[in-house]
Amino acid sequence: MTSTKQYNAFEAILLNNNHIRQVVIVGGTHGNERIGLYLVKKFNQDSSLLFRPNLTTTCLIGNPQACKENRRYIDTDLNRCFIKADLDNQLLGRHEERQAKVLHQQLGPKGNSDNFLLDLHSTTANMGLTLILVNDHPFNLHLAAYLTHHNPQVRVYRWTQGNQENAFVSSLCQLGFAIEVGPIPQGILLASLFQETETLIHQTLDYLEQINRDVSLPLPRTLPLFQHLDVVDFPKTSSGELAGMVHPQLQGKDYQPLNPGDPIFLTFEGQTLFYEGCSTVWPIFINEAAYYEKDIAMCLTHKQDISLKWN
Amino acid sequence: MTSTKQYNAFEAILLNNNHIRQVVIVGGTHGNERIGLYLVKKFNQDSSLLFRPNLTTTCLIGNPQACKENRRYIDTDLNRCFIKADLDNQLLGRHEERQAKVLHQQLGPKGNSDNFLLDLHSTTANMGLTLILVNDHPFNLHLAAYLTHHNPQVRVYRWTQGNQENAFVSSLCQLGFAIEVGPIPQGILLASLFQETETLIHQTLDYLEQINRDVSLPLPRTLPLFQHLDVVDFPKTSSGELAGMVHPQLQGKDYQPLNPGDPIFLTFEGQTLFYEGCSTVWPIFINEAAYYEKDIAMCLTHKQDISLKWN
Repeated sequence: MTSTKQYNAFEAILLNNNHIRQVVIVGGTHGNERIGLYLVKKFNQDSSLLFRPNLTTTCLIGNPQACKENRRYIDTDLNRCFIKADLDNQLLGRHEERQAKVLHQQLGPKGNSDNFLLDLHSTTANMGLTLILVNDHPFNLHLAAYLTHHNPQVRVYRWTQGNQENAFVSSLCQLGFAIEVGPIPQGILLASLFQETETLIHQTLDYLEQINRDVSLPLPRTLPLFQHLDVVDFPKTSSGELAGMVHPQLQGKDYQPLNPGDPIFLTFEGQTLFYEGCSTVWPIFINEAAYYEKDIAMCLTHKQDISLKWN
Repeated sequence: MTSTKQYNAFEAILLNNNHIRQVVIVGGTHGNERIGLYLVKKFNQDSSLLFRPNLTTTCLIGNPQACKENRRYIDTDLNRCFIKADLDNQLLGRHEERQAKVLHQQLGPKGNSDNFLLDLHSTTANMGLTLILVNDHPFNLHLAAYLTHHNPQVRVYRWTQGNQENAFVSSLCQLGFAIEVGPIPQGILLASLFQETETLIHQTLDYLEQINRDVSLPLPRTLPLFQHLDVVDFPKTSSGELAGMVHPQLQGKDYQPLNPGDPIFLTFEGQTLFYEGCSTVWPIFINEAAYYEKDIAMCLTHKQDISLKWN
């Protein structure tokens, strides 16, 4: 399906006199996602690595204490703490609620910041290199189209839900997105995925540098995009205990079509449960470790092509 | 290389009048290793699943609190708490030190228990189905030979270090071993590995049942075995920070020969470091998440064949 709405690249950067002033790369928003953390450490060790003549880039660690303890978070998920009302609420004082206020001070104000923000994440799901968009800003859509065109491993997931405010770190800035890479266990580094993530960051900076130089880039007219639909919970027993696992036939099949009647879960007793939706969906975040505590087995998306208008 | 020492099956079970009286299966010794935990929950839900006419089997959760919090441990690694002197030391009162005393009371006394013990673990390393032996008991060697013969996925790792006392849960009993399965991220279940582990448990119980019935089994005369040699630390900077990752060419290559001069690490700057040993080794536990805190990148083993004598 092709969306009839067209997105114009110029709308994007008018607010900055057509220029991106400041890029911020955040790693270690989740303390057990080590690729982002060690990329930020590497870049901070040698700032010349990210140098572009027309761009200023800084890197920071999202949740230093959680990184130190190699835990996703200390008290609560930092990447769900960026609702405006919560950022303004001085009564919220848990570790990550305080850390969110610090980041908001540095990178915000939310929705009205000139920064371009990349927030680095990793997942146990087979997500490859995924850009997670939390808004429809044309600039982000065009950049995403450029990256998917130049790097066939890149996919785009748009996690918007009607008018619901997004609570991610990346929602602080209109420009930018989260980068989610996998599969990788929590708490470790994988050299191949580390290097692929680093390449993607460089490709992003290259694009921004070209934009700042007013260079026009040959770009595609459509962006293939996976639109968030819903989440699927794990099956449970009558007493609320986990009753099964992701089906072996679905494990690792992120971004592949799941049709009504396809296997989705295997109970501990060996019974196959089937997908009961009424149309094809594209599951992602299949068997992500951090979502067990929320009972979420996967997210469902709808695959679509977005038309882009270039000037 | 074939060891000249021969191991006799009869020595093994004389102490039990040629019978295994009680099998104990422990899962959740590490709270974020979910396969063992959910197998134990499954077996406790329906005890008929493990029924064998001549065998009594019970299952228990090694570290219930750590399982509840989905953490490897609360205060310290439970699977390093089973040194005799520590078990007798009433001054040691951290969570896992106390839990070790509870398990010792239930399953011990250490080294003088009639129980046959299986302790279920999982790893982020590509270890397949590994039996970890912590002693040279002929009964264990024969059972290991039976399992490797009947299940080509099974490998045997002997973690003995001279006369050093072993501190694992599985060291409580002379008979039995730990089962280590992977690769799997911490905190999740993988249906395929769950089922393979379950099958291995059933094959073990089938063997024990046959022994108790005095059935003689057709068995191999040699046991291929990986003997623990040493551990390899991650490379570090002069200030003690992590300086690199397991090399992509070595990642996932557990149980495959590593020769002097082969790539072993990749630094964050992209420099390859090579294995500098003087002979071929067989690395395992490559890039195990839980070993980062100990700086251990992998364990090295020596591959050998053990001669077995059957009566």
